[in-house]
Amino acid sequence: MFTLGIDYGTNSVRALVVRCKDGKEFGSSVVNYPSGHQGVLLDPRDHNVARQHPADYLFGLEKAVKGALAQARKQPGFSADKVVGLGVDSTGSSPIPVDAQNRALAADKKWAKNLNAQCWLWKDHTSWREATKITELAAQHRPHFIAKCGNTYSSEWFWAKLWHCLQVDPKVFSAAYSWVELCDWVPAQLAGVTDPKAVKRGVCAAGHKALYAEDWGGLPDKEFLALLDPKLADLRDRLYEKAHDASESAGHLSPEWAKKLGLPAGIPIAIGEFDVHYGAIGCGVAEGTLVKVIGTSTCDCGVVSAAKTVPDIPGICGIVKGAILPGFYGIEAGQSAVGDIFKWFVEGVLQDVKLHAKLTAEAAKLKPGQSGLLALDWNNGNRTILVDQRLTGLLVGQTLYTTQAEIYRALIEATAFGARAIIERIKEYGVPIDRVVCAGGIAEKNPLLMQIYADITGCTMLVAGSSQACALGSAVSAAVLAGAHPDFPTAQKKMTSLKKVAYKPKPAAQKTYHELYVLYRQLHDSLGGRNKSADLGGVMKELLMIKESAH
Amino acid sequence: MFTLGIDYGTNSVRALVVRCKDGKEFGSSVVNYPSGHQGVLLDPRDHNVARQHPADYLFGLEKAVKGALAQARKQPGFSADKVVGLGVDSTGSSPIPVDAQNRALAADKKWAKNLNAQCWLWKDHTSWREATKITELAAQHRPHFIAKCGNTYSSEWFWAKLWHCLQVDPKVFSAAYSWVELCDWVPAQLAGVTDPKAVKRGVCAAGHKALYAEDWGGLPDKEFLALLDPKLADLRDRLYEKAHDASESAGHLSPEWAKKLGLPAGIPIAIGEFDVHYGAIGCGVAEGTLVKVIGTSTCDCGVVSAAKTVPDIPGICGIVKGAILPGFYGIEAGQSAVGDIFKWFVEGVLQDVKLHAKLTAEAAKLKPGQSGLLALDWNNGNRTILVDQRLTGLLVGQTLYTTQAEIYRALIEATAFGARAIIERIKEYGVPIDRVVCAGGIAEKNPLLMQIYADITGCTMLVAGSSQACALGSAVSAAVLAGAHPDFPTAQKKMTSLKKVAYKPKPAAQKTYHELYVLYRQLHDSLGGRNKSADLGGVMKELLMIKESAH
Repeated sequence: MFTLGIDYGTNSVRALVVRCKDGKEFGSSVVNYPSGHQGVLLDPRDHNVARQHPADYLFGLEKAVKGALAQARKQPGFSADKVVGLGVDSTGSSPIPVDAQNRALAADKKWAKNLNAQCWLWKDHTSWREATKITELAAQHRPHFIAKCGNTYSSEWFWAKLWHCLQVDPKVFSAAYSWVELCDWVPAQLAGVTDPKAVKRGVCAAGHKALYAEDWGGLPDKEFLALLDPKLADLRDRLYEKAHDASESAGHLSPEWAKKLGLPAGIPIAIGEFDVHYGAIGCGVAEGTLVKVIGTSTCDCGVVSAAKTVPDIPGICGIVKGAILPGFYGIEAGQSAVGDIFKWFVEGVLQDVKLHAKLTAEAAKLKPGQSGLLALDWNNGNRTILVDQRLTGLLVGQTLYTTQAEIYRALIEATAFGARAIIERIKEYGVPIDRVVCAGGIAEKNPLLMQIYADITGCTMLVAGSSQACALGSAVSAAVLAGAHPDFPTAQKKMTSLKKVAYKPKPAAQKTYHELYVLYRQLHDSLGGRNKSADLGGVMKELLMIKESAH
Repeated sequence: MFTLGIDYGTNSVRALVVRCKDGKEFGSSVVNYPSGHQGVLLDPRDHNVARQHPADYLFGLEKAVKGALAQARKQPGFSADKVVGLGVDSTGSSPIPVDAQNRALAADKKWAKNLNAQCWLWKDHTSWREATKITELAAQHRPHFIAKCGNTYSSEWFWAKLWHCLQVDPKVFSAAYSWVELCDWVPAQLAGVTDPKAVKRGVCAAGHKALYAEDWGGLPDKEFLALLDPKLADLRDRLYEKAHDASESAGHLSPEWAKKLGLPAGIPIAIGEFDVHYGAIGCGVAEGTLVKVIGTSTCDCGVVSAAKTVPDIPGICGIVKGAILPGFYGIEAGQSAVGDIFKWFVEGVLQDVKLHAKLTAEAAKLKPGQSGLLALDWNNGNRTILVDQRLTGLLVGQTLYTTQAEIYRALIEATAFGARAIIERIKEYGVPIDRVVCAGGIAEKNPLLMQIYADITGCTMLVAGSSQACALGSAVSAAVLAGAHPDFPTAQKKMTSLKKVAYKPKPAAQKTYHELYVLYRQLHDSLGGRNKSADLGGVMKELLMIKESAH
């Protein structure tokens, strides 16, 4: 028996064919989204804009699945009729405006070129004003709504994006019958669901991004939404009443898609979750294990039994029952940019993609603290623990001799300091972290970064066995759903693994990095606005205001 | 009649042949110092080290003067026998340890390769600990010593350097009979002075860097020097009792050097001054005019009649009677790195010297504030108004889209904010600044920078007529000394000029830059340790401590 995991990343979609009995990967294929800049639709007038063309998702889906199956067919023992289920994960919150037939609005010629009618990619930050307003309104009227997401609603999230669309492009908003998260929309497409209200929504996206919780009857009440805009309250009727965890299916493969992909019709499709949530499953997440998926950004996931009481943890992106594993609270934290920061420096500033390897080698020769540099990892804002997308990067300590490699290493260290701040915050509130399992290309290919993370966080860094943990996690979910394994722990035990390498903290480096971390926290708290006496909390924001006036 | 100006810069020496009646430049020649990295002897283990080989000065002197004369000879009306005087300026404080015959210690084979036996170049910062200690001791025992230099003694200055030599290399210190500033040593060499005590010292170097003032009887008293080290008190006897302004001569050209250079023996040699001080004269400095010499670093010079009372100005490098023009207080301020910061970014970080032109063109297309970036111009410390060489650079506001050109422009703006801080400080203490005359390659060749300086400082920026203002000022001083003109104002009127271009502040840009300047001052005061409540004053220093421990 085999299952397929389909993983929608920021720039590409991957399909992975996995054998259920042992997690062996039989075939894999990656398809880059054809539109925009590396798959992202940008607006040269506004750097906050990041959209994606929904047609790219369907194009990539077909091509990636076919590619993975073609590869699997070359392996003995595989045939497509042995595929018993599918799982889909994606970035998020990436809501897509859809028509009454659940078609992406952008599929209509009328809206095809309108950026607001596309998928609003997770890293779109245009709605920062709306996010602030939602935070304020919730604090005043429904504090429990945001208590589980660090008391701060983010511009990366569902309601802020929809509200912003309503404000800047009411025609698109009116034309949209409903909005569906990418991770829910693709399973619904595969299942042939043509009514947005019939789309089985995952509690992962709903709980983490749309203020959904069973405790208060699902999505925010209409009275609250009306405080934002009455049209959002109206929309609530066209969204969903209930969201589901991975014990439920999202539907079954439609004959049309079965034919298109060359798969058996009617096989079950797992509930959609965000990439890192299924990634956590693919990394063997369990109580006491923190999973870090390190990519363009980083997402940290942990789980705590739903039988326990989990306190609100200030600054954590979300604590949502069933978001990762059924029967567990899912805890999500993250850093808005990690690989993206290195990429920005090497490709954006130095403009030479080949320098990654050279700078990594040079940076590896430097000792902790030797450069005299310290950076803040906020080029794309701070998701955890400050929950503020309008923060920006900072580099301090430059002399006339500061080198490329020193800056490169300082940027790696900055992301590691950010990682430490997250781990400390989670542990501080009683959630145990006994081990850290990392996944993603950076975790596999950058031993320098992994050692720095170990030295800075003080945790041994393990690496997931699969290079495709997110897709693998989706395949695990499909395997459980299809009955290939009785439950998630069994499926994880059989289908996931760890690499042999383990990065252990080195005491001397830990000592120096602790000194630097103290300084990092000083800058972090002052520039992040958490140290009221420091008077620098407004600097980054005021720079952005001036920047926006200048444009 | 002609005079020769000889200008010792950081990387090269220039000789300039000037006609006294109209300042016309008849010949010019630049010679790069052959030793070290671009003429500077570095220590790979310590970035604070910057020394120069004294033999380079004599080698360059002969070659540059001969080159300039050769060029002048091609012009009608010139012959070497019409040269009536010489003037020399140099960087400083750049003290040279000499033997009892006034020969550079490094000329002796025994010391030739010892870095501590070379000239200690102005930008050598090894003695920061000693500078701090001198500041403390003076504050406690002789507060008037440092009242005129911003209450802070700098690691770039005379006593800190000598004391550091004594601490780290007592053998060199003992072997040195005396120490002579480069701007005094070259005139003494030309005049054939073979006794260090007979070297005519300029009050410019003495007053600005060696705590010399007539008010307290010359150099610091032996009792005070003994608080540093008794050996420094002993040395005082082998230094000088009196220093002189430019109304005096440093001597007359010796037959030996006359022959070597092809000039008339016995012509007068002007008192040595620092490059920018003679540069200020070459730019037409007078009461109400601030001269900015913009190069690797920036030096700002103004004068106030010695008949007036000039208050102590906190954070200003020095207020010294006769340092620039006889009969006037010379006021010096400056920025430790300006061109050096752009050079660092383009050549050090981006590693492509050709990018200067491209980035300037791209940066020119940006509007003020548009990048959202803000930088501190402290990659080489802050000379004025914080007087702290141990400060470092800072860049804030980076996103994932920040470009090379945006950073480049932010660095230019940072130096302009630094310039504004200086102008405001000087004016605040009652010294009028009615116009600003700029000199140096950057002032001539970078209209973008000049416009940004106008917009940020709110002052119209004028540009000196000569590209070689320092050498021209030296030639003006020689012309007055030789009697070609009755006084400095007359000589300046005849021999110096302005370019036609004038950069006027643009109100819209001024407004935006004012907003940015407010933020610059917030960072400046917090990171510079002037805002006690901000708690970030220690960050840069602690990074340096960690850096030094790591090495």
